[in-house]
Amino acid sequence: MPSTSLNSLRNETEGALAEFVKGKTEKLNKIDDFLEPIAKSLSEYILAGGKRFRPIFAYLGFLGAGGVANPKIARAFAALELVHVCALIHDDLMDGSDTRRNRESIHRQFQKHHDELKYLGSAANYGASVAILLGDLSLAWSDELIFLSGISQAQHYLALPIFHEMREELMAGQYLDVLESVRGDSDKIRSSKIARLKSGKYSIERPLQFGAALAGANSTLLADFSNFGLALGEAFQLRDDLLGIFGEPSVTGKPSGDDIREGKRTLLIALTLEMCSEKERKLLERSLGEKSLDNSQIADIQELISRCGAGGECERLISALFNEAMANLDRSDCREEIKGLLKEMAEATTQREK
Amino acid sequence: MPSTSLNSLRNETEGALAEFVKGKTEKLNKIDDFLEPIAKSLSEYILAGGKRFRPIFAYLGFLGAGGVANPKIARAFAALELVHVCALIHDDLMDGSDTRRNRESIHRQFQKHHDELKYLGSAANYGASVAILLGDLSLAWSDELIFLSGISQAQHYLALPIFHEMREELMAGQYLDVLESVRGDSDKIRSSKIARLKSGKYSIERPLQFGAALAGANSTLLADFSNFGLALGEAFQLRDDLLGIFGEPSVTGKPSGDDIREGKRTLLIALTLEMCSEKERKLLERSLGEKSLDNSQIADIQELISRCGAGGECERLISALFNEAMANLDRSDCREEIKGLLKEMAEATTQREK
Repeated sequence: MPSTSLNSLRNETEGALAEFVKGKTEKLNKIDDFLEPIAKSLSEYILAGGKRFRPIFAYLGFLGAGGVANPKIARAFAALELVHVCALIHDDLMDGSDTRRNRESIHRQFQKHHDELKYLGSAANYGASVAILLGDLSLAWSDELIFLSGISQAQHYLALPIFHEMREELMAGQYLDVLESVRGDSDKIRSSKIARLKSGKYSIERPLQFGAALAGANSTLLADFSNFGLALGEAFQLRDDLLGIFGEPSVTGKPSGDDIREGKRTLLIALTLEMCSEKERKLLERSLGEKSLDNSQIADIQELISRCGAGGECERLISALFNEAMANLDRSDCREEIKGLLKEMAEATTQREK
Repeated sequence: MPSTSLNSLRNETEGALAEFVKGKTEKLNKIDDFLEPIAKSLSEYILAGGKRFRPIFAYLGFLGAGGVANPKIARAFAALELVHVCALIHDDLMDGSDTRRNRESIHRQFQKHHDELKYLGSAANYGASVAILLGDLSLAWSDELIFLSGISQAQHYLALPIFHEMREELMAGQYLDVLESVRGDSDKIRSSKIARLKSGKYSIERPLQFGAALAGANSTLLADFSNFGLALGEAFQLRDDLLGIFGEPSVTGKPSGDDIREGKRTLLIALTLEMCSEKERKLLERSLGEKSLDNSQIADIQELISRCGAGGECERLISALFNEAMANLDRSDCREEIKGLLKEMAEATTQREK
């Protein structure tokens, strides 16, 4: 399989999404002309160039288990991105985030729409309602895209239990994350557990297994992918924690220090609270969830997280987890020529800048 | 099939939901102890005694097309109720409704929870976040329940296109409904179209076809059910319009005149605006969406709707649509012994008090 590269898998994903979204836009516009703004906005959002980690991991799981690349399977994997689009739209609404992928979040787009068109009632409510419905639609479409992909019924049935598991873990992880912010006590064990559900399982382990199941993988390989995926997923989440604090806004498409203003109780924050002084701990606790923090206050927190050693500890953990994931992969029955691509993906997920 | 009654179909639906929800509660509690409050709240909400119209219509479509009742099929039909639970939870959040089925809506429950436990941050945001996630979970569960129902792969594949269509039409209809409220101009044609998507198709036509497809119905019967379902669905929605204005709160579980405070642009409102005087029209336009209306102001609007003849016109339309639906049913290839039950359901949906 000399022609397979991460780029080619990404392109196949983009193609499958573009094809699906084109059909759906036509369909919605046929139902009613007034659906045009939401059809347009949701299509653009879906096609606005995410990292497509989940479809690509699924594809690698499939190829690693001996599957042969084809357009049908690419469509089934693209469905994972539609689940993710639901999660992003709803997450931005819950967090009150204004931007995503350098564009306005859906609720903000329609809030503006409401203002511009001088609609009646609350613009914020209107924006929120549209974001809720478009997230729901994307979630419903994720099932439909797998169904319409053209894979066989037998394959569909092998993959569905993992698909269902993945979505349930995502919602559970999201809730626990929200709960952690409002409960306001962080500890490393809980933060790790939530990271495992939200990122390890949802972003890596389950997509890999979803793909592997579609290739008819045996339980040994599914377990191998689980070991690789969970370690890598935790590293992925830790990178996310660091980017949420130190990320460069022009690259991440999110304001600097966004996680602090949102009061996210990440593992990085749990480490910081453990490693800093009593006085610093109080400052950090006061700052978490404080929407009005200015850039210099954010810079102080960034400095604190670095100085106490939590930032460095986070980097060390990422390296250790990356190595653990790689060792698991090396030992596995995954096809040798795919191991290299999985290593590339592992690097991309843990060394990324956005 | 002498033992089949609407009650027995309802009991089978309740049984299927109870069984599914029990398994899910155990599962969520096993993922994490902190999921207990949401598992409990969502189970209670699902089991809190809705009318179960959609599963029952699906069951009647199935029996009418020659299917033989069994527990597997009852589970597949119960899945429609999980779609509906998502719609209700999200709808209440979008509308800011505090009550549903005489209980607090999900976002209100968790807002209170936040207050009681003195959680950090905004209680309203927390309530909204939980409502978003529990709606998502219920939507994801709807697919899983069909999959786990035990029906054959062949049946599953016959029914899925209708299931997907139904969910898409629901989201589209919900959006158009929200849009109509903020655009603030009502006309009969648009109100009818939205009612057709939201109620005719989603509540009656598609469930009937979903059931009929599972029994392997031919396209003639599917079309017959469509004719019956669309007419009945419009009557169903008109009854909803009347109940939203004139419903008895102790029976509907919703405050009297709720639709006025929410600014719903129903067909009943469109008729009223057409039939009342210029002065009355202005009063009604000002009142729509006015959250602070007191009971005597609501009573004035109720009186206006009756006096101008729109209430009576609505009742006449319901009767005419009911008769049209019945004529379509009589002419159809639906099994004779099921026609009587469909007539009972038609009466229940159009003559109900809640």
